Amino acid sequence: MSMGTSEAVLHVLSGAVPRLFSSDLCSSNLDLVFSSKYHIKSVNKKGSSYMQRFKCLRLARCQIGSYMCKPLGGGLYGNRAIGRLKLLRCKCERAESVSGVGMDEGNGAWFVDSAKKLNLNGSINSPNILEFEAVEQLKREKEGLTSNGTVGTGTSTFHKASVDSIEDEAWELLRDSMVYYCGSPIGTIAANDPTSSNVLNYDQVFIRDFIPSGIAFLLKGEYDIVRNFILHTLQLQSWEKTMDCHSPGQGLMPASFKVRTVPLDGDDSATEEVLDPDFGEAAIGRVAPVDSGLWWIILLRAYGKCSGDLSVQERVDVQTGIKMILRLCLADGFDMFPTLLVTDGSCMIDRRMGIHGHPLEIQALFYSALLCAREMLTPEDGSADLIRALNNRLVALSFHIREYYWIDMRKLNEIYRYKTEEYSYDAVNKFNIYPDQISPWLVEWMPNKGGFLIGNLQPAHMDFRFFSLGNLWAVASGLATTDQSHAILDLIEAKWADLVADMPFKICYPALEGREWQIITGSDPKNTPWSYHNGGSWPTLLWQLTVACMKMNRPEIAAKAISVAEKRISRDKWPEYYDTKKARFIGKQSHLFQTWSIAGYLVAKLLLADPNAAKILTTEEDSELVNAFSCMISANPRRKRGPKSLKQTYIV
Amino acid sequence: MSMGTSEAVLHVLSGAVPRLFSSDLCSSNLDLVFSSKYHIKSVNKKGSSYMQRFKCLRLARCQIGSYMCKPLGGGLYGNRAIGRLKLLRCKCERAESVSGVGMDEGNGAWFVDSAKKLNLNGSINSPNILEFEAVEQLKREKEGLTSNGTVGTGTSTFHKASVDSIEDEAWELLRDSMVYYCGSPIGTIAANDPTSSNVLNYDQVFIRDFIPSGIAFLLKGEYDIVRNFILHTLQLQSWEKTMDCHSPGQGLMPASFKVRTVPLDGDDSATEEVLDPDFGEAAIGRVAPVDSGLWWIILLRAYGKCSGDLSVQERVDVQTGIKMILRLCLADGFDMFPTLLVTDGSCMIDRRMGIHGHPLEIQALFYSALLCAREMLTPEDGSADLIRALNNRLVALSFHIREYYWIDMRKLNEIYRYKTEEYSYDAVNKFNIYPDQISPWLVEWMPNKGGFLIGNLQPAHMDFRFFSLGNLWAVASGLATTDQSHAILDLIEAKWADLVADMPFKICYPALEGREWQIITGSDPKNTPWSYHNGGSWPTLLWQLTVACMKMNRPEIAAKAISVAEKRISRDKWPEYYDTKKARFIGKQSHLFQTWSIAGYLVAKLLLADPNAAKILTTEEDSELVNAFSCMISANPRRKRGPKSLKQTYIV
Repeated sequence: MSMGTSEAVLHVLSGAVPRLFSSDLCSSNLDLVFSSKYHIKSVNKKGSSYMQRFKCLRLARCQIGSYMCKPLGGGLYGNRAIGRLKLLRCKCERAESVSGVGMDEGNGAWFVDSAKKLNLNGSINSPNILEFEAVEQLKREKEGLTSNGTVGTGTSTFHKASVDSIEDEAWELLRDSMVYYCGSPIGTIAANDPTSSNVLNYDQVFIRDFIPSGIAFLLKGEYDIVRNFILHTLQLQSWEKTMDCHSPGQGLMPASFKVRTVPLDGDDSATEEVLDPDFGEAAIGRVAPVDSGLWWIILLRAYGKCSGDLSVQERVDVQTGIKMILRLCLADGFDMFPTLLVTDGSCMIDRRMGIHGHPLEIQALFYSALLCAREMLTPEDGSADLIRALNNRLVALSFHIREYYWIDMRKLNEIYRYKTEEYSYDAVNKFNIYPDQISPWLVEWMPNKGGFLIGNLQPAHMDFRFFSLGNLWAVASGLATTDQSHAILDLIEAKWADLVADMPFKICYPALEGREWQIITGSDPKNTPWSYHNGGSWPTLLWQLTVACMKMNRPEIAAKAISVAEKRISRDKWPEYYDTKKARFIGKQSHLFQTWSIAGYLVAKLLLADPNAAKILTTEEDSELVNAFSCMISANPRRKRGPKSLKQTYIV
Repeated sequence: MSMGTSEAVLHVLSGAVPRLFSSDLCSSNLDLVFSSKYHIKSVNKKGSSYMQRFKCLRLARCQIGSYMCKPLGGGLYGNRAIGRLKLLRCKCERAESVSGVGMDEGNGAWFVDSAKKLNLNGSINSPNILEFEAVEQLKREKEGLTSNGTVGTGTSTFHKASVDSIEDEAWELLRDSMVYYCGSPIGTIAANDPTSSNVLNYDQVFIRDFIPSGIAFLLKGEYDIVRNFILHTLQLQSWEKTMDCHSPGQGLMPASFKVRTVPLDGDDSATEEVLDPDFGEAAIGRVAPVDSGLWWIILLRAYGKCSGDLSVQERVDVQTGIKMILRLCLADGFDMFPTLLVTDGSCMIDRRMGIHGHPLEIQALFYSALLCAREMLTPEDGSADLIRALNNRLVALSFHIREYYWIDMRKLNEIYRYKTEEYSYDAVNKFNIYPDQISPWLVEWMPNKGGFLIGNLQPAHMDFRFFSLGNLWAVASGLATTDQSHAILDLIEAKWADLVADMPFKICYPALEGREWQIITGSDPKNTPWSYHNGGSWPTLLWQLTVACMKMNRPEIAAKAISVAEKRISRDKWPEYYDTKKARFIGKQSHLFQTWSIAGYLVAKLLLADPNAAKILTTEEDSELVNAFSCMISANPRRKRGPKSLKQTYIV
């Protein structure tokens, strides 16, 4: 599908919208679909045959598809919202692609691997048993199975699929969550939970949430949905977005979008599909999604590396999109730090949780996106400055994080003994941290072996909480050094009972409680201690854990975590998150059939089967960067300055 | 003095440095100077004649001047720091200006106004008596006295000066704090406290601290020091500044600078003077000074309006400096808010105090600086985009602050009843504020008449504390509406016992205590409850209070506050801040003879004498802005959207 420039206005040919998408069908069948889908789940648990489930789900999927085109007259974001939006209209010229939507059984094949041996059949009763042999065998068996373009032909996979029911179910659910725009798949819905009446914005395609879906499809050799996602979200990047007439920077990627079917202008009987993005201007709390653009770059590189199709990243509009994101990130600011300054809730933790400032997650994604972008940018006259800024930032950022965010026993003891109020360039306690800030839990919790990157660093403020995604992605991206990366995994092993327990993986540790919870979260009833973002456990983090483990060649940790997840995740209907210190309960307001829980599990399984495939997501410090880094360290005047330097001459 | 472009490198002619500035004299006399100065103060308290004091202070002042040129070999920021710095060298070609430094008695005249009647002689024993008549009389008497270029001629003022000893003393101390660079005054030292051995960085010229000094000199008709300050700090703006090889944006103004005398290259017997700026890279906690550039713009406009000399603001390098600051402020960001996103401690409260995000003080200065800059920018081809961005931001910023930061009884009750978790464009509780966040103190404290702008607004976070400078400058700049401005002054009157008590003016109310203090300040021992930034009282705020009162034509409030200050401020040796709920104690670590306490008092007195002079600092919304604003409100789709709009057509 050919896309115009980022500002192109594409018009829909409403005649191309098939009968399947008409509002009549949708509205009349909607309740039926949900109830029948719920029924399917129940049947599934009782051990019905695969065939029965498969047929029903095909039906359900088409109708979920059609749900997306239901006229939204009475809904929460219906006509009134439409009034505000300048809608992007789709170009639905290719009727043939649309007609294929309802009848793609041939595409309904499941990727099946023999990892079942590792995960099913009750062979792993103790999570402490690491099945190295099984993993190795698995690797050998899987060699050459993924990304060969021949998967997905339908008939022969049917038998295999019935063997590994959890993975099969996951794939079914993932396909079931696909969202179509003018007949082409362009994303996955955030949650597809028929039991929930409280939809809020879980019926949207979230950029952040789609990443594991996209990776799963890539690893499965299904590239179209990822390509469509990349190109359509690119179009949304230059959307006019305002809150009370203030527009955030060009280059901002939306948090989410939705496909709407709206009446065609001047013709009440015809409809057209439109993409409606949200940049946070309607989100709860009005939080801008800083991570969206960074994930978009990471996914774009993964697409190219996995599919071999570099034509997407080489497109002029895509190059422009990359540069717009980079310019937004690299723009001059007041800050003395090379880290990105953001407001609270600008990433996976998208509610107030005291992560304003320079949260690790954003920095890890920033570093990763800078490295990915550098790989993809085509050299041209206009981009020399940008690439120079990018390289400088990479060096400064990695130095800053490795030096100031890192803690282990040694460093913690150093901070514990800090002197304060040092005014000088040579201050040891540069950020004027009061040792009293070291929380009592930390001095007990820090293992002898291992360490981690703290959650945040501000003037006079270290957030000592362990944030999982930031640490895992620091490993994946190489923001952490090799030693630090191993130490992070060592800590995860040492603190297994806290970080994994009954369901991987705690989003952060520990939870804010009591007065601290009141003050820092503003008494957020959703983020109560050991729930949701505040120490809840999120199955989707399995995939980032697996990427980190594969990067460091320690697959046994990922395998062990996956086996823990498999004991409950399907039975519990793929919840968004779990509550309690040990992740024993399905989360209080947790959606079921949360797509990124499903996709996260699948990516973890796929990578376990083919560790090499993790390379599409990881980045390495190249020799050029290493050199720049060591030059910087040795040239850093803070490190070598002494009375001797008095005799130097200074030419400005 | 002619200045080159902002990147010009100027070289010193060391021969021009007079004997007075030589290191021999400085080092041998330093201790003597301090002890004799301290003695002077004692003598002063005992009622010595003005003449005696005057002579001693002249001496002391010269030697303070020479202190600035002492070789800093053994000091805290001595040779080692020099090694790092790429120093700007001064151009000391004009020996005649240097030779004048020690002998400018002719310039030592005091600006004397008859406001003494209002403030001295024990006539105001009760701070509740508002002396309207006195103020009015004062106004009439002072008409035409300021800004006429004839003040400061020396002889005739001598007699008058002896009458009002507090003001005289303040002027002496202010002159005493002047810092010279190659013979010309360029600023005032932050504190000149001979009793303190702990200098830290109080021996620097702080941009923020110099503002009241500069205004006092302007109102006194002494323009040179302000002009020099503006042009020299402009040179520092484009300084190469790094922390661990990361450079903050071009356009950042330093927090402070220092005049150093360093050995001349290749000649150990000769020295040169250099300006050494600090952008926060050596500051405690490494905080970048976001307010510096904003204050610089405000002072620049005041200089032009007061002196009538528009040649400074019209200079190409000055225009470039303005634009660099604006570009830094107006740069695209991720944020959905039109407010500036900053880290904790980036303004007058320059330590961790939970004011990260979008603190009111920064927003008020930002708004003020935007209006001032708009007045001064000379239209040229290249600046159209900048001016468009500036105008858009002004409208969005004032709407945002007036709408979302404002609270009074009505609004507080509305928030108290907020529903939460609204996802939509039409959310009433846009920022998802939990009513539980409303602190118990506030529901009691909010007066029936009056209101204020809250300290900060973030996703799910309102900081309900009252921050004085932000509120006062919102009045001065017109960021608050006229009604809101009066309501702020009403609140100050209603809460006099909390905000003024024994010494104006509380920096914020209330203090953070207990667990809240631990969590939000990180257990900062300097910011203990009701001390320093945490509910301490700062005499310097008198001047901003006075500007706000003059703008709203309510001088009686300022007069009352000044009379409170006069009871103690001189006796207490002009402390930096006061502690305790009622400001009864001189602050725990408060410096004495803090320059901006002195200058703040003088500006307040000068404005009380000539309310019209406040116009050099205040700004008004012009009709253009008002129109844009009302257009915006009526065009705002959030405000008029409804089902009707469905029939509209949308052309992207």
